[in-house]
Amino acid sequence: MQMNVNIAVDAMGGDNAPGEIVKGAVDAVNIQKGIMVYLVGKQDLIKKELTKYQYPEEQITVINAEEIIETAEPPVMAIRKKKDSSIVVGLNMVKDGTCDAFVSAGSSGAVLVGGQFIVGRIKGVERPPLAPLIPTEDGVALLVDCGANVDARASHLLQFANMGSIYMENIVGVKNPRVAIVNIGAEEDKGNMLVKETYPLLKTCPDINFIGSIEARDIPKGYADVIVCEAFVGNVILKLYEGIGSTLIKKIKQGMMQTLRSKIGAIMVKPALKATLKDFDASEYGGAPLLGLNGLVVKTHGSSTAKEIKNSIIQCVTFKEQHINDKINEKINMTK
Amino acid sequence: MQMNVNIAVDAMGGDNAPGEIVKGAVDAVNIQKGIMVYLVGKQDLIKKELTKYQYPEEQITVINAEEIIETAEPPVMAIRKKKDSSIVVGLNMVKDGTCDAFVSAGSSGAVLVGGQFIVGRIKGVERPPLAPLIPTEDGVALLVDCGANVDARASHLLQFANMGSIYMENIVGVKNPRVAIVNIGAEEDKGNMLVKETYPLLKTCPDINFIGSIEARDIPKGYADVIVCEAFVGNVILKLYEGIGSTLIKKIKQGMMQTLRSKIGAIMVKPALKATLKDFDASEYGGAPLLGLNGLVVKTHGSSTAKEIKNSIIQCVTFKEQHINDKINEKINMTK
Repeated sequence: MQMNVNIAVDAMGGDNAPGEIVKGAVDAVNIQKGIMVYLVGKQDLIKKELTKYQYPEEQITVINAEEIIETAEPPVMAIRKKKDSSIVVGLNMVKDGTCDAFVSAGSSGAVLVGGQFIVGRIKGVERPPLAPLIPTEDGVALLVDCGANVDARASHLLQFANMGSIYMENIVGVKNPRVAIVNIGAEEDKGNMLVKETYPLLKTCPDINFIGSIEARDIPKGYADVIVCEAFVGNVILKLYEGIGSTLIKKIKQGMMQTLRSKIGAIMVKPALKATLKDFDASEYGGAPLLGLNGLVVKTHGSSTAKEIKNSIIQCVTFKEQHINDKINEKINMTK
Repeated sequence: MQMNVNIAVDAMGGDNAPGEIVKGAVDAVNIQKGIMVYLVGKQDLIKKELTKYQYPEEQITVINAEEIIETAEPPVMAIRKKKDSSIVVGLNMVKDGTCDAFVSAGSSGAVLVGGQFIVGRIKGVERPPLAPLIPTEDGVALLVDCGANVDARASHLLQFANMGSIYMENIVGVKNPRVAIVNIGAEEDKGNMLVKETYPLLKTCPDINFIGSIEARDIPKGYADVIVCEAFVGNVILKLYEGIGSTLIKKIKQGMMQTLRSKIGAIMVKPALKATLKDFDASEYGGAPLLGLNGLVVKTHGSSTAKEIKNSIIQCVTFKEQHINDKINEKINMTK
């Protein structure tokens, strides 16, 4: 049974706003029944974009918000002062129950801070982590936390493992997901203080399938489904994925353009190669949820195009249908 | 003028010992005059390997050492107990002045611990970091520290920046190398506690060319020459380079084998592609020096082949010719 899901979308956030955001919302309602999208931002701009498309009009509502929080603004101050920004207005719609979810490609800092301050945490959740899916050789893994809480403690990482397992099992459909902690060696005695404190907590937790340490080189190989780490390390992993991927693909393209022979070869491999590299493109998997809030907040990449926005909106449906927050609430307060 | 450089090489260390190690030593003396290589390990095995090759015999000496430190052994205990291991014997040859340098593909932990305990630190150096060169779009960058000192302090990172700058300028030949600290955002107020403490120290240090924070995605783009971070993060960066690179290349090969058309194309692009990807292969650049010791200790990859061993041996010549340790000594004790 499909339920009604209400999703606020930050029409002003990210490098390609409002054009790609509005297009993503249109694409989403064109393929998904039972959702209502609220496009939040400067209504004149949004409405002008909407005139370009055909879509079921009853599924999109425009909500005016005059202010925009810029990426460089200090987040705490911005959330406090810009009450009429697309981020604050959108998050308040989740808080007051108008919406189930908020999707934004805008300032990461403002979305993370606003998510915690405005929407609020599920009772018992100490720190809500940002948890994107990253591509692996044969699928995806959930990287948790990748930027919400620097200088985290062991008890936070234990909760990340629990919440991440619930997400992977119910949203991605991985039964009994393998949980690993990022470490600098495979042995149990390796690691920094945080890892050494966290390891025994994970090892003795009955609710997760903990498989031990994972070295960074094995993350892309898909050895684990839920990759637990503190936010600084997670952010480095996420961004290095992006950096190495794009550098390597650039070098491969340059390499193929070196001789006449290789140029002809390049034309022949291109279609097959394009399909393969698509698997390894993080934007295919929608945005990253901020887990453990009283509602769903999804942060998508600042350079999101319509495709990523559409995927993020559709992801919200599964999140609600699977009652992820009820499951997190139950797990966190049962294991306390 | 070429000076005489004496280099002890761990013939028993790494996945491909002793075969590839001995071959690497032979390849090195065959192209480099003025070096003397001491192959340390089980003499029967080493001598048997040596009979396979032609080389100037006066440039290679075999030093017997009966024990081997395995990768999984706790390093401190292993260094203390296995006095007749190739690692301990080789490091002692640096300590007593017989050799200028020690090269090993063996246990990282034992080499790092042994380097500090046996060879010892240059006066004033708080923590000797492991500093490999990593490939970037148009060259290389020095990653420091990538595994020697977990839970480092800000004063350590400042020394890493100083020593790394000396290395990049004198060994790699980059004038006034750009130093950056790994961070989760470009702004000065971003980061965890360690980064926030280290940033002002780097900013006000007159001896380095500090350019600010670097996000992980920009490391492969070559935005900085010396990448400063604590060892846990550095280790993740180094290993993720390896992991993403190999996964992506594997996927590209699979992609090219999907259709007849792409298979033919693959044959045509292969030679050009191979040359390009060679640039992005960390083993091209020899091993990673442990900076700040009273002598040179170089750790090469556990899976090192003859090529990496040869490159690591030859790297030792430049290190001595450029008086790197005198320069580190002067810089550290001047800036104190």
